[in-house]
Amino acid sequence: MRILVLNPNTSQGVTDLIAATARMAAAPGTELRFATATRGVPYIATRTEAAIGGQVALEMLAEHQPGFDAAVIAAFGDPGLGAARELFPQPVIGLAEAGMLTACMMGKRFAIVTFSQALTAWYRECVEWHALTSRLAGIFFLSEPFRAIDDVQGEKADRLVDLCHRALAESDADVIVLAGAPLAGFAAQVQGRVPVPLVDCVAAAVCQAETLVRLGMTPATAGSFARPGAKPTTGLAPALAGWIEGREQG
Amino acid sequence: MRILVLNPNTSQGVTDLIAATARMAAAPGTELRFATATRGVPYIATRTEAAIGGQVALEMLAEHQPGFDAAVIAAFGDPGLGAARELFPQPVIGLAEAGMLTACMMGKRFAIVTFSQALTAWYRECVEWHALTSRLAGIFFLSEPFRAIDDVQGEKADRLVDLCHRALAESDADVIVLAGAPLAGFAAQVQGRVPVPLVDCVAAAVCQAETLVRLGMTPATAGSFARPGAKPTTGLAPALAGWIEGREQG
Amino acid sequence: MRILVLNPNTSQGVTDLIAATARMAAAPGTELRFATATRGVPYIATRTEAAIGGQVALEMLAEHQPGFDAAVIAAFGDPGLGAARELFPQPVIGLAEAGMLTACMMGKRFAIVTFSQALTAWYRECVEWHALTSRLAGIFFLSEPFRAIDDVQGEKADRLVDLCHRALAESDADVIVLAGAPLAGFAAQVQGRVPVPLVDCVAAAVCQAETLVRLGMTPATAGSFARPGAKPTTGLAPALAGWIEGREQG
Amino acid sequence: MRILVLNPNTSQGVTDLIAATARMAAAPGTELRFATATRGVPYIATRTEAAIGGQVALEMLAEHQPGFDAAVIAAFGDPGLGAARELFPQPVIGLAEAGMLTACMMGKRFAIVTFSQALTAWYRECVEWHALTSRLAGIFFLSEPFRAIDDVQGEKADRLVDLCHRALAESDADVIVLAGAPLAGFAAQVQGRVPVPLVDCVAAAVCQAETLVRLGMTPATAGSFARPGAKPTTGLAPALAGWIEGREQG
Amino acid sequence: MRILVLNPNTSQGVTDLIAATARMAAAPGTELRFATATRGVPYIATRTEAAIGGQVALEMLAEHQPGFDAAVIAAFGDPGLGAARELFPQPVIGLAEAGMLTACMMGKRFAIVTFSQALTAWYRECVEWHALTSRLAGIFFLSEPFRAIDDVQGEKADRLVDLCHRALAESDADVIVLAGAPLAGFAAQVQGRVPVPLVDCVAAAVCQAETLVRLGMTPATAGSFARPGAKPTTGLAPALAGWIEGREQG
Amino acid sequence: MRILVLNPNTSQGVTDLIAATARMAAAPGTELRFATATRGVPYIATRTEAAIGGQVALEMLAEHQPGFDAAVIAAFGDPGLGAARELFPQPVIGLAEAGMLTACMMGKRFAIVTFSQALTAWYRECVEWHALTSRLAGIFFLSEPFRAIDDVQGEKADRLVDLCHRALAESDADVIVLAGAPLAGFAAQVQGRVPVPLVDCVAAAVCQAETLVRLGMTPATAGSFARPGAKPTTGLAPALAGWIEGREQG
Repeated sequence: MRILVLNPNTSQGVTDLIAATARMAAAPGTELRFATATRGVPYIATRTEAAIGGQVALEMLAEHQPGFDAAVIAAFGDPGLGAARELFPQPVIGLAEAGMLTACMMGKRFAIVTFSQALTAWYRECVEWHALTSRLAGIFFLSEPFRAIDDVQGEKADRLVDLCHRALAESDADVIVLAGAPLAGFAAQVQGRVPVPLVDCVAAAVCQAETLVRLGMTPATAGSFARPGAKPTTGLAPALAGWIEGREQG
Repeated sequence: MRILVLNPNTSQGVTDLIAATARMAAAPGTELRFATATRGVPYIATRTEAAIGGQVALEMLAEHQPGFDAAVIAAFGDPGLGAARELFPQPVIGLAEAGMLTACMMGKRFAIVTFSQALTAWYRECVEWHALTSRLAGIFFLSEPFRAIDDVQGEKADRLVDLCHRALAESDADVIVLAGAPLAGFAAQVQGRVPVPLVDCVAAAVCQAETLVRLGMTPATAGSFARPGAKPTTGLAPALAGWIEGREQG
Repeated sequence: MRILVLNPNTSQGVTDLIAATARMAAAPGTELRFATATRGVPYIATRTEAAIGGQVALEMLAEHQPGFDAAVIAAFGDPGLGAARELFPQPVIGLAEAGMLTACMMGKRFAIVTFSQALTAWYRECVEWHALTSRLAGIFFLSEPFRAIDDVQGEKADRLVDLCHRALAESDADVIVLAGAPLAGFAAQVQGRVPVPLVDCVAAAVCQAETLVRLGMTPATAGSFARPGAKPTTGLAPALAGWIEGREQG
Repeated sequence: MRILVLNPNTSQGVTDLIAATARMAAAPGTELRFATATRGVPYIATRTEAAIGGQVALEMLAEHQPGFDAAVIAAFGDPGLGAARELFPQPVIGLAEAGMLTACMMGKRFAIVTFSQALTAWYRECVEWHALTSRLAGIFFLSEPFRAIDDVQGEKADRLVDLCHRALAESDADVIVLAGAPLAGFAAQVQGRVPVPLVDCVAAAVCQAETLVRLGMTPATAGSFARPGAKPTTGLAPALAGWIEGREQG
Repeated sequence: MRILVLNPNTSQGVTDLIAATARMAAAPGTELRFATATRGVPYIATRTEAAIGGQVALEMLAEHQPGFDAAVIAAFGDPGLGAARELFPQPVIGLAEAGMLTACMMGKRFAIVTFSQALTAWYRECVEWHALTSRLAGIFFLSEPFRAIDDVQGEKADRLVDLCHRALAESDADVIVLAGAPLAGFAAQVQGRVPVPLVDCVAAAVCQAETLVRLGMTPATAGSFARPGAKPTTGLAPALAGWIEGREQG
Repeated sequence: MRILVLNPNTSQGVTDLIAATARMAAAPGTELRFATATRGVPYIATRTEAAIGGQVALEMLAEHQPGFDAAVIAAFGDPGLGAARELFPQPVIGLAEAGMLTACMMGKRFAIVTFSQALTAWYRECVEWHALTSRLAGIFFLSEPFRAIDDVQGEKADRLVDLCHRALAESDADVIVLAGAPLAGFAAQVQGRVPVPLVDCVAAAVCQAETLVRLGMTPATAGSFARPGAKPTTGLAPALAGWIEGREQG
């Protein structure tokens, strides 16, 4: 099985974190490939950056998806997920989606713990898009700045563990979703210090992608995710234009 | 007062319809300017096209907004609206938002009537994003193809009036929102044939934009729509990159 | 265009505040007329007073509405609004409705800030009636008594600004709705001291009434706001009895 | 125990129906007294009539309540209920409230069956006010006119039984609430013809009023139903004015 | 009228508390009988214990119900209630259900006050099952251990009164539901010390059971609570097996 | 990895169907063990049977779980799931839960398609317990009897495919969840005849159980699924009693 993992951010360091965690989570026979955005921002945090990241994710999928059985959009707010799901024939999974749905199997309500307040409005809209608000115990974030996006988990390890404890004290969370690709791999490091299950979204997304492939999920030709009819485009990235115009390669 | 009206579709014919209706709706002292997308698709209908349209709307705003008091994103699903509202200093209004909120003042529930089933999934997500689902009586659409996007209201006038009657018979709608920029101006033509108020979204959006300007709405520097901090970008349209990087002109 | 602004409270001082703000907000060609309740209470704050105020608002509309293009019920909880909307042919707008819907165009969630706890139960029911609870970030109120209803904004200016800051700190509000006719005009005075948009409900209501008239909104003859059939009455105020019995003048 | 049953309609014939059913339902030691509105409309059906009926109910309570242990507002939409509950020291129960809450003990969802479409908008708002929408399977009504409000159950008996069957076929109702004081006593007559429990709202309201008295429910002096502070009034019915001004008799 | 009151816990001391309160609440002609679980746990507090308690309640009903007009499942989370309602011909009422629905007639929102945190997850699921979450102001509990389940109200009287005050200060509760059969009779003892109505669930359940009998509620033969068809069973308690297999005695 | 798959029904034939499908879905290294209930009913369909099945599932888990890494409760309504999740240290997954959450990754809304109306009330409560109602497009069922529970998919194959088409025509489903253990393996047989993804709940549950094990999900010691404190029991099955009393073997 071949799974494509896309980082719609331009930070190669974040892709490296994602890759390390994804490889640990993948089943023996799974082949993973990673791609980093070549345009956009180093780390998507706001509605604006998510709007851009959505199109970037589509461009990356259009370019890279041939030959893959499933794809993961490896940014927590799932930029472009709904669009990708309607346009491409393979299952496409978002990091937030995989993390939250996996968390649902370990408890009634999950808290989202993350490292920056800037992310919370976008994250909340993501939870609402997935209609999972009634499973959300709260979004908890660090209020302080961090030095580097690809080392935030190292720099803030203790602060994030404290924040997990605060989330448990101040909400009725049964599970914690560690949110944001820069926290890939962090759950495994600190699980012993937090008394509820911690969900690593990258690991969860790889497992869920494998599950959808193993279950033989076929593309819809009816319902709201059936592939739309071909339509002319102007000025789009060539691979994406090809997919929308119905003359894709692959 | 100067209001910028953006058509994030590439159809000049649709911009012409928008412009004619907007000019009729605007107050005497209001100066309107119109812009048509130079990249994207002729008419946004799907989640994919909306994801692209969101970025296109941001690019257009970044380029054209200097000197304007408010802006209208003139596509019913409001592509890019949340992002635009956080990035730019002027009030930005979406067509769906303006139409739905105006409809709320004429009844408890509104029906959305539109000309193509392809639009309904995106429209429903738009209603959910605005948290107005409990005001929605239903989305009603024509199931048949149409010839040209900029003459759909001419070709389908009788069919759309029939659809309005069906919406009233099959739901508890008090008001009807005629959805999609290609229906600009249609409400005025057929109001006499439908027994509930019909909302023209383009006209509503222009009036609401004027209202926000007249009320002196200032940009937020707190809350989730405060402008995000500057961030480096790669490969974005220059004007939009300027806004995200905090070195905009205007 | 002629707009009737009704104060369903018996305080002439509050009507004066309303009038000053409404005149500032109105477009050049708009003619405004104001009326003060001749029965009821000085200032509606409770469910009981709102129940009375609803009937008073209907009596006032029945008496004064001939010749007007739209009407505003100038009390925040919108007493009698649903009834007025079904009975009279013109658009009728409530202060709360106008303020909240306008706020929705400036952010995802609004806080309601007001000067007395006594108002909050009624206000909450009003938000629920409008089905806008999911847009509400919270209702914040002063806990202390005030001297005079028509000078509460003068006496409490600093306290209300502090309360706006508390609302932002303790909720996820993007916008603040300053609630209650006695706060008419207060937003303009303190906008510079609060980092999110402040909505003045009286100003918003005038602009929204103008918008509905400019959009040519016609009375419904179907749906739940179609005018009910004539019915005999006993012991009601003559003008209101006339409207219910279908023999109105005007 | 003494219970006051108020008909906020001016139809003495409806009061007679209410009285006959209430007497059958009351426990041996319960003393019932009935009052008919002396102003208002023969039968409340619309939002307008409900707004008037709310004030009428308050006037009737203010005048008649001294000496009673509880009161029933005997109109299905519960006009004035929230206000009455905050103003008067005794428990006050609405017909809709009693019928719906009783129905909840016989199933997961109830259908409301009534004799006129004119009632449905008001009834729906009443269900929403009680926050029972998720228990509502639907509102079903006869579309045809009836001859006399106090014989609607005689004239339409078979049609209403058919409507109950339709409600069961078209919704997931477990119980049926027969709505409107004019249907008092009808459940007992046709229960054998309908395969789910039928709730008679008048009978339910009398039993629930007795229950609240037997449970010794005391008036709140905190929370949103604590009696409001005294306030001056102008032009109100004397007894009601007395209660609001804090100089009531009784 | 004969009412069966089942304690699905094995604590005879709790049954004694229930019985004392139920006898005070019952109407003169009502004959009450009590039963205590012979298997299960002393006091149901967790999801696990509730799952067991549900089956125990069904076993007890199957064994004891012949000859009764109604039954009460006297544990706050209503174990087995939905099942009992579909299987047996009499009305069956749960303690939580009776307490919450009765509370709804005294205010808009109720707080649940109880003596142990262990109960809260189960209680919350019970509120959700009854679809009364929007009427719930909060669940408040003591965090400390108690000595004996049948004297918790004696030991913790002052602490529970303090907790009621905290519930009023920290939520918008209008009424307080004292939750858990071990608090039977406590409301009457401390009502004077709490400024909102206190609901005693055992007393409420007895009154509501009487009400359903007096209203002549008949078993459903349609809807989701119609008795299911007979089905073979293996290894169940004989009386319950008889009911499921359609060869019950009684 | 060792996974225990429990059939809380007494039908060995259904266990055989489950086993065949589970073995096809499991990853190479996964060892599966199956158990069939020795008490209860042949096929759980009603609230009563689910209440019994919940306890049966707990008894089976208590007896069989030692040595397993995860467990699946292989009945669609997830009897006993919440209880099992709090009592046992391994991840426990329900069939409905796994099917619905997996479906969420293939579309916005799923329809549940099943073979008997008797199941729908229980299924609906299960969807509500999981707080997934807003993802549910509808529950669709065959109205006709079937011959044998372990051959319902053979007998009704065409009828079920027709029902899938009806679900797509009458709802906005993007995915279909084939509900009930007796439909195990059916999705793979008919996927080609239905234009949206079909989810096989048994296959999904096995994959999700594997995912939770691979992610290293640890038991909670805080939150509402922390294992409850030990408590004495009376008359329970020995292994279950052992777990509740804190003296389990394993």
